[in-house]
Amino acid sequence: MKTPTSLDDLIDALRCLPGVGPRSAQRMAYHLLQRDHAGAERLASSLAYALGHIRHCEKCNNFTEDMICELCRSQRRDAALLCVVEMPADLLMMEQAHCYQGMYFVLMGRLSPLDGIGPREIHLDRLVKRAQDGVIREVVLATNFTVEGEATAHYISELLSNKGLKITRIARGLPVGGELEHVDSGTLAQAVFERREIS
Amino acid sequence: MKTPTSLDDLIDALRCLPGVGPRSAQRMAYHLLQRDHAGAERLASSLAYALGHIRHCEKCNNFTEDMICELCRSQRRDAALLCVVEMPADLLMMEQAHCYQGMYFVLMGRLSPLDGIGPREIHLDRLVKRAQDGVIREVVLATNFTVEGEATAHYISELLSNKGLKITRIARGLPVGGELEHVDSGTLAQAVFERREIS
Repeated sequence: MKTPTSLDDLIDALRCLPGVGPRSAQRMAYHLLQRDHAGAERLASSLAYALGHIRHCEKCNNFTEDMICELCRSQRRDAALLCVVEMPADLLMMEQAHCYQGMYFVLMGRLSPLDGIGPREIHLDRLVKRAQDGVIREVVLATNFTVEGEATAHYISELLSNKGLKITRIARGLPVGGELEHVDSGTLAQAVFERREIS
Repeated sequence: MKTPTSLDDLIDALRCLPGVGPRSAQRMAYHLLQRDHAGAERLASSLAYALGHIRHCEKCNNFTEDMICELCRSQRRDAALLCVVEMPADLLMMEQAHCYQGMYFVLMGRLSPLDGIGPREIHLDRLVKRAQDGVIREVVLATNFTVEGEATAHYISELLSNKGLKITRIARGLPVGGELEHVDSGTLAQAVFERREIS
């Protein structure tokens, strides 16, 4: 007794999705074929379309359908500021916070030697070139405060030192509305260590 | 600042997969576009191919690329036995256990009125017709021992009663190698309740 080959192929293909093992790939395939033909058709076509049309912006490296993305083309952004984030989702979070009006560079990852992700994979050569366009004055490092994000920020700050640029890192500390009682001790320790003079 | 429309479309389309919310859909889309173009192309094409070629076997309702699947066409199976399972994965488990040589009927679900899945959705009309082909003598109900699987088995046994068929249910009890100390009390209670005379 064999499953039809094209069903096996589909189950196998679904496993390229992150976090999807053999069991959930099987469940997904059954669901698509049994209950959601319309959704499956839409998935197949939008996947094919995205593969054909989405590329990386030549300036900020974010996903776009153009050579240069809308944000990089905008005249209303501060071209002297360059914020470095790990992923497009981080850029969206920054934009939703309405706290920043400069340009971006999206690494599409973070340094992670064990996963084979080195400086080349996160396009640091392009970042260095981008940061030295003569207009950028400050590079804001907004990678995550994880071990890998911190290492990435440190590595970039070394790469860009002595180039006449101001290199900054977003602040670490208690969240807005945060209570000392409920914050983890590492965060509290950092908040004390990085305390600011306020008067 | 907008994400490119085709990226939004892809993220949206990925949400048709069971268990995939907005966050993981985004993560999947980024992963496919950034790190696995080959996998994404394979997924798009195998999905399109499967949609075009996979249908339900007219006899057992399992997925197949033919009108009647290989198992139903086989001459080596016992045509007098019909085993009812919920999903294709259950059929595979039965086959892997090498315990059964009869035919199958795959419900592609279980009765679940709250999810809008009634007798029609699990093709009980076709099952009743299939069971009365004149060759089938025994129907083995092998739905899961969940509340819904049990309700489904009960419903089917009512449907098929007084039709001259033997209706059986696979046994419930301790697993092979199971120890009383480590089994849940519900299973143990059933094992005692359904005890068999052995000499």
